[in-house]
Amino acid sequence: MVCAVGWFAKPTHPNTANIVSSKYLREFLDEMQPDQIREHLRKFTRLPHLAGTEQNLKYAEQIMKEWQEFGLDSVEMVPYDVLLSYPNKSQPNYIAIVDQLGDEVFNTSLAEPVPEGYEDISNIVPPYSAFSAQGQPEGDLVYVNYGRTEDFFQLEREMGINVTGKIVIVRYGRIFRGNKVKNAILAGAKGIIMFSDPADYWAAGVQPYPDGWNLPGGGAQRGNVLNLNGAGDPLTPGYPAKEYSYRFSLEDGVGLPKIPVHPIGFHDAVHLLKKVRMNIHTNNQVTRIYNVIGRIRGALEPDRYVILGGHRDAWVFGGIDPMSGAAVVHETVRSAGRLLSKGWRPRRTIIFASWDAEEFGLLGSTEWAEDNAKLLQERAVAYINADSAIEGMYTLRVDCTPSLHTLVYDLTKQIASPEEGEEGVSLYESWHKRDNWTNDRDAPRISKLGSGSDFEAYFIRLGIAAGRARYTKNKKTERYSSYPVYHSVYETFEIVEKFYDPTFRRLQAVAQVRGGLIFLLADSQLLPLDANQYADSLRKYAQSIMQLAQRHPEEMETYEVSFDSLFSAVENFTVAARDFHVRLQTLNRVRVMNDQLMYLERAFIDPLGLPGRPFYRHVIFAPSSHNKYAGESFPGIYDALFDIENSADPEKAWEEVKRQISIAAFTIHAAAMTLIPPA
Amino acid sequence: MVCAVGWFAKPTHPNTANIVSSKYLREFLDEMQPDQIREHLRKFTRLPHLAGTEQNLKYAEQIMKEWQEFGLDSVEMVPYDVLLSYPNKSQPNYIAIVDQLGDEVFNTSLAEPVPEGYEDISNIVPPYSAFSAQGQPEGDLVYVNYGRTEDFFQLEREMGINVTGKIVIVRYGRIFRGNKVKNAILAGAKGIIMFSDPADYWAAGVQPYPDGWNLPGGGAQRGNVLNLNGAGDPLTPGYPAKEYSYRFSLEDGVGLPKIPVHPIGFHDAVHLLKKVRMNIHTNNQVTRIYNVIGRIRGALEPDRYVILGGHRDAWVFGGIDPMSGAAVVHETVRSAGRLLSKGWRPRRTIIFASWDAEEFGLLGSTEWAEDNAKLLQERAVAYINADSAIEGMYTLRVDCTPSLHTLVYDLTKQIASPEEGEEGVSLYESWHKRDNWTNDRDAPRISKLGSGSDFEAYFIRLGIAAGRARYTKNKKTERYSSYPVYHSVYETFEIVEKFYDPTFRRLQAVAQVRGGLIFLLADSQLLPLDANQYADSLRKYAQSIMQLAQRHPEEMETYEVSFDSLFSAVENFTVAARDFHVRLQTLNRVRVMNDQLMYLERAFIDPLGLPGRPFYRHVIFAPSSHNKYAGESFPGIYDALFDIENSADPEKAWEEVKRQISIAAFTIHAAAMTLIPPA
Repeated sequence: MVCAVGWFAKPTHPNTANIVSSKYLREFLDEMQPDQIREHLRKFTRLPHLAGTEQNLKYAEQIMKEWQEFGLDSVEMVPYDVLLSYPNKSQPNYIAIVDQLGDEVFNTSLAEPVPEGYEDISNIVPPYSAFSAQGQPEGDLVYVNYGRTEDFFQLEREMGINVTGKIVIVRYGRIFRGNKVKNAILAGAKGIIMFSDPADYWAAGVQPYPDGWNLPGGGAQRGNVLNLNGAGDPLTPGYPAKEYSYRFSLEDGVGLPKIPVHPIGFHDAVHLLKKVRMNIHTNNQVTRIYNVIGRIRGALEPDRYVILGGHRDAWVFGGIDPMSGAAVVHETVRSAGRLLSKGWRPRRTIIFASWDAEEFGLLGSTEWAEDNAKLLQERAVAYINADSAIEGMYTLRVDCTPSLHTLVYDLTKQIASPEEGEEGVSLYESWHKRDNWTNDRDAPRISKLGSGSDFEAYFIRLGIAAGRARYTKNKKTERYSSYPVYHSVYETFEIVEKFYDPTFRRLQAVAQVRGGLIFLLADSQLLPLDANQYADSLRKYAQSIMQLAQRHPEEMETYEVSFDSLFSAVENFTVAARDFHVRLQTLNRVRVMNDQLMYLERAFIDPLGLPGRPFYRHVIFAPSSHNKYAGESFPGIYDALFDIENSADPEKAWEEVKRQISIAAFTIHAAAMTLIPPA
Repeated sequence: MVCAVGWFAKPTHPNTANIVSSKYLREFLDEMQPDQIREHLRKFTRLPHLAGTEQNLKYAEQIMKEWQEFGLDSVEMVPYDVLLSYPNKSQPNYIAIVDQLGDEVFNTSLAEPVPEGYEDISNIVPPYSAFSAQGQPEGDLVYVNYGRTEDFFQLEREMGINVTGKIVIVRYGRIFRGNKVKNAILAGAKGIIMFSDPADYWAAGVQPYPDGWNLPGGGAQRGNVLNLNGAGDPLTPGYPAKEYSYRFSLEDGVGLPKIPVHPIGFHDAVHLLKKVRMNIHTNNQVTRIYNVIGRIRGALEPDRYVILGGHRDAWVFGGIDPMSGAAVVHETVRSAGRLLSKGWRPRRTIIFASWDAEEFGLLGSTEWAEDNAKLLQERAVAYINADSAIEGMYTLRVDCTPSLHTLVYDLTKQIASPEEGEEGVSLYESWHKRDNWTNDRDAPRISKLGSGSDFEAYFIRLGIAAGRARYTKNKKTERYSSYPVYHSVYETFEIVEKFYDPTFRRLQAVAQVRGGLIFLLADSQLLPLDANQYADSLRKYAQSIMQLAQRHPEEMETYEVSFDSLFSAVENFTVAARDFHVRLQTLNRVRVMNDQLMYLERAFIDPLGLPGRPFYRHVIFAPSSHNKYAGESFPGIYDALFDIENSADPEKAWEEVKRQISIAAFTIHAAAMTLIPPA
């Protein structure tokens, strides 16, 4: 019998004091260097590396080799065979204007003008909507704004326009493109065209690339148009796509649109005002993809996992999406390797992941989550996501689960602001100054997680505490969607180097945030997760969902809808969380209490899933049913409230609201129980 | 920092050596005494104590008080408000033979003849089918044997008899009565009568009660006729039935039959050969029930739970079902309390449960499992069930998960045979001699868990290692179903005392098995769970399910059905299990490896559930879809194979077989991964 690290221990500091406890943290953060990140980004953005292509496998092999050289304990390549979708090389996709004889009098462009320096590159996939149905529908074109639920409602109810049998054209932005396609299908459209409107993809006073970072008129946004709701590979929902896996037929696949879909740039969009014909020949095919998984074995708790994962596949070069993120992960691995060589070893196991096929529906990360679900649900402490590390030049942006808020604040106080003229200013201060959470507290804004990146299966399906961090724009003044060149050929190394982060200090700061989170989650004796913050957030969410219901005061009375049980559950949780953190001060069983913290997020998982969305199982957070990018709190109640507006049977609709309130109350009560002393 | 019990430790013995390691085990087993068990049984069988009645609450309060006196650390009463069903006191249920004028010319009896000594007892509920629909259907009677799927098929296909609009009469036995009712509904019957046929409820050469233990002709079997498939309270499936819980309407409740159902004895049954009228006025009502939960706090791993649970509610006195089991639990608690007073404290937490409303669909145990699911899935090591402790006078019967086999064998070698003339013979030897597992190994037979008692939610929904033990009849020579007086008024204290176990040594042996299992699971440093046994069982099940498929060799070729992936997964699992147990010999991280053992059973849970049965989630074991009492291995594959016989689209049906093979193979692969070193 050797000595008791892990089970019994009396720490000298309270929970947050963990942060200063490691003499290696500073060294780890300081090791991450702008020049190194620049190098990594340069190296992995020379060639297009779409998921399922030779070049993306080559980059995987290179990452694997370098992670091994950096000193990880193990690195492996993990393949899956998933459904991908590519344009047909011999029959290009385009939209044509047809005259009354049916002749095509104008065709949209077949490719984007290639940026300078990349003229000789082959294998640039033209703009397309991955997983579009094939077909050549022809018909009148109807403009439906952003293609949101409310846009279709307005068209039908207020303007009396029925789009059944029509082709709709919508502008990109505001919501996930897959939701636009779903709405168009529900409305009866036989095709959908999406375009990048300068109103949404043009920053004022900025030149188009290469003279600035705006989207040229010939540029267009690629992207998948699935409605997977967390299923991963459309043919193997719930299970990993391996050799022995049963695959559904394409007709039974999850989330595949039944109509042709195509994206165009605004130079083409201005022409399309009449009758058009879509010519779409995109093919679905089962294709091998590769995740790279690297590990550092935990010294004391090898069966507790902290994961840093981000994707590698890109629509073209991936200068921003995702390689600005992948370069940051690479640098984090390098820095961790350096520490290992100096004798450091984290308390818990760290897993680094380079995911494949994120752009095709978060496939690599979801298949790996499905493959390892049983291990992850017992052992995973946290998942930090590493997609694009920069989408603007203003300040830090963090989306994470409430239990990570305190850690994010504490950590960013130890990282320097990357902004010029802010020497000696912490990232926290710089961020706080630029994006104060003015509505209810004096602290930098942290948002809810939605979806649209690889954390989804970990957080929303499995209930693992999760977060993401990147550099962003000024939301108040910059109103364009994402960043202008998003998913176009103009996402190059040069756009980052010339415009977004010439010193690479912003990417360094993001590396330090992502890496620092991983470091502290893996190496602190007490897990730096904060149940009190969860309690605060639950109260806020409960108030706001109740306010939504209270827009219908008469119905609430008629149908006896009460939120009392929800607030009582939140109150229970608040007391349990407070008591838990008081006990943490005097704890003598580290592992027991760390397990309580680790499993707190899991406690919000309902194995029955949300209505109609079996892979979205988090009762507190889910992607909005109307916009996958946005996170909804109390999604079950929210959707039930949304439906009462459109229900033919209001009594039944309100019954569903009541049922969802009850499920939320039960789940929070149950989560509170996980925080009380276990026996 | 104190010393390292739990996390790091080097044991001197291999895994099974745990068993002899506790100096307290012998003392614990020896403390359990026949006279004490007789006392407990006497005490709790004086009055009828149906779920939801005053008397059953009184017994709950008495148990709570006595468990406190025995010395448990805490005992609490946990109420739920669930749907129960009672006969209408002012309008009795009965079946009438009607003549051509519609007059009732014969009525079945309204109650069983009350046994001697109990004449003054009120509140004996007459025989009825709990949750029957109300109604007075009238029609021709059709006899459908046991009412099994194959009985209805034979009637329809071979004999050309259609039961649509008819009242069917079936004999009790072979399958769970709820399955008979479901089959009758599917066949279109408008009512169903069930009777106890002497062929199934009469032991040769035995007198009817009170002169022997056979069922008198006026006796009848009560019982619920739900098809819950693990849902618990029909109105709150998936969630505990608390004040704030949303309740479905009766129409939307789970598993409630839509036709009247009634049980009769064989004295009445012989009359019913013509046209009958059923008069059923049974009411469903939400009623408060009470579980009693007692705890002994674990000294070293308070967050690891070992559970001994059994029900308390009875149809009438419950002399056998369940109080023979409850008396055994009571004695186990008393013995554990004695040990506590001598300074013993188990390593892990022990939870004792007296469940309510088992007879109404495992309601008390399932609601508590739903209430505590989040804690149980992270913390529960094992669940041992304690329903009726005796159903025959021949030998031991054990049904359990494969990982418990070794422990059961090791433990029963340390318990004395209760049989006369077997002084110095172990229970193991006595059992082995009487029920050798001759088909594939030389050891006493252990069976699969089916359902029909309170382990269901713990094992089949949550994936907690589970088992049950009782004294049973000689299956080879005694062909009657369960035991003759099952669920009748004749289940008294006296039937146990006079016939089943006059010395109470059989019940003592069962107490020692159930108690010993709990003791060793809670107190062994290394969990006494055996992954190798699971591997052996998986191979056996895989072979037998493949043989079932191979009855269709041509279709298997046509539809390319292969079991290779399943056998490859079993092989993987076998290697992982073997390596795991080799590593156990030299382990230095007890908690890490114990967690691997604890979570092994959990690894067989598929969160998506079995097709159409969301609360049956165990991929290896589930109650048969055709008989809830029986356990099916590879239930998903089994049901898919069953369906091909009746499918209009064989290709689709075989696709489902292939899908289920793939799910089973994936699950076993994934379970194997849980056994390899965690990092």
